[in-house]
Amino acid sequence: MSKRNVEVCFTPAVYDTFKKDEAIVVAVDILRATSAICTAFMNGVERIIPVATLEEAKAYKQKGFMVAAERDGIVRDFADFGNSPFNFTPERVAHKQIVYSTTNGTHTIMMASHSHQVLIGAYLNHQALVDHILKEQRDLIILCAGWKRKFNLEDTLFAGSLAQAVLRDNRFESICDSTYAAMDLWDVARVDLMAYLDKVAQRHRLARNGLDDVLEYCHTFDQTDKIPYLKDDYLITL
Amino acid sequence: MSKRNVEVCFTPAVYDTFKKDEAIVVAVDILRATSAICTAFMNGVERIIPVATLEEAKAYKQKGFMVAAERDGIVRDFADFGNSPFNFTPERVAHKQIVYSTTNGTHTIMMASHSHQVLIGAYLNHQALVDHILKEQRDLIILCAGWKRKFNLEDTLFAGSLAQAVLRDNRFESICDSTYAAMDLWDVARVDLMAYLDKVAQRHRLARNGLDDVLEYCHTFDQTDKIPYLKDDYLITL
Repeated sequence: MSKRNVEVCFTPAVYDTFKKDEAIVVAVDILRATSAICTAFMNGVERIIPVATLEEAKAYKQKGFMVAAERDGIVRDFADFGNSPFNFTPERVAHKQIVYSTTNGTHTIMMASHSHQVLIGAYLNHQALVDHILKEQRDLIILCAGWKRKFNLEDTLFAGSLAQAVLRDNRFESICDSTYAAMDLWDVARVDLMAYLDKVAQRHRLARNGLDDVLEYCHTFDQTDKIPYLKDDYLITL
Repeated sequence: MSKRNVEVCFTPAVYDTFKKDEAIVVAVDILRATSAICTAFMNGVERIIPVATLEEAKAYKQKGFMVAAERDGIVRDFADFGNSPFNFTPERVAHKQIVYSTTNGTHTIMMASHSHQVLIGAYLNHQALVDHILKEQRDLIILCAGWKRKFNLEDTLFAGSLAQAVLRDNRFESICDSTYAAMDLWDVARVDLMAYLDKVAQRHRLARNGLDDVLEYCHTFDQTDKIPYLKDDYLITL
């Protein structure tokens, strides 16, 4: 049997050159959307509805949903709380349906809906993802949300760590320059990950708004074995 | 005075998120277009007209121009020779006007024509580029041709080497994740560049067509101080 292919797509802007209906896609937005979503499911949320615009979030709120929404670090007045993973405590989210408003993250998740399966990936559920991907034996596309159509480092590093773990299984292979780049960057960064993250522009954007308290948490491995995935237009766990 | 900014754009597909009219853009297509163009000027060519399609190349041939054109490693029957840098010998090109047909390369060069200056970059004219960029003191965008809208390693490594050299001058700075990534990849690769290039998909594409004899040459520093640049729709040297 031919090997399964692992590819890393650095930005949604070039996803059209990667897309394959039969592949598993792991959507990645480490700071902070996919880390927050994994946290919410770890803490017992029943369902998350990702929306791209504040208008959509507001409409859901009016229908009685609990809504997480902020822009530029300020919780929107109609929202119940902001977008930080730390907001998704068991007390707030267990057994609830929650709307999560995120521009880059939602766009990234929804654009891969044609594929066999869209999984939500973060360091928090890293090993669970690896186990699932090895079991499924399908081509894998790791889709980084990036930043406004651009490459970003934090999603790329995660992509490198995930690709490396999957490629340890010799039923998988890669012939993709961006996969090799992501893995090499991960090898550089992993030596002192927190120090390396000083290069990350998003870290500084968050810091300017006092939101970088999540940095270390969002880079912590294996806090949950839950894997959120896209079912129709909402997220539940496998 | 505020510092000048250095940015690396991994693929023409996201150039719209980088473009600045006042910047200097260095167009990069190491395997092989920009390496071939630098070689041609080193060997005395007077002018190069880059064209994207074989139809355009053919039309120029009918008007009497000398044409370099190949696809999939086969020299086109109407062309004078193929696209390898090794074809641009002084005997063939000195004092001539030549049409060079290249899909990714031409598209990349022309899309930056709005900018202050579009320079043709390769390892072959690396130091000359650095000297010119430091002298001009403008924002710098290193624009990688990539491969069919995707990231590629060989252009990224060159971008890293160039960014690193420019950023040694403290009048320049970078706050761009892709610049840091390119420099870190260059630091990994430079230790044994020829061995590292085994990861490059384009190297294997060229090898399948017997065209990878240019690999080492296209990664040789400082063979010429000529800097080709875009003037209207053709290339001459500064």
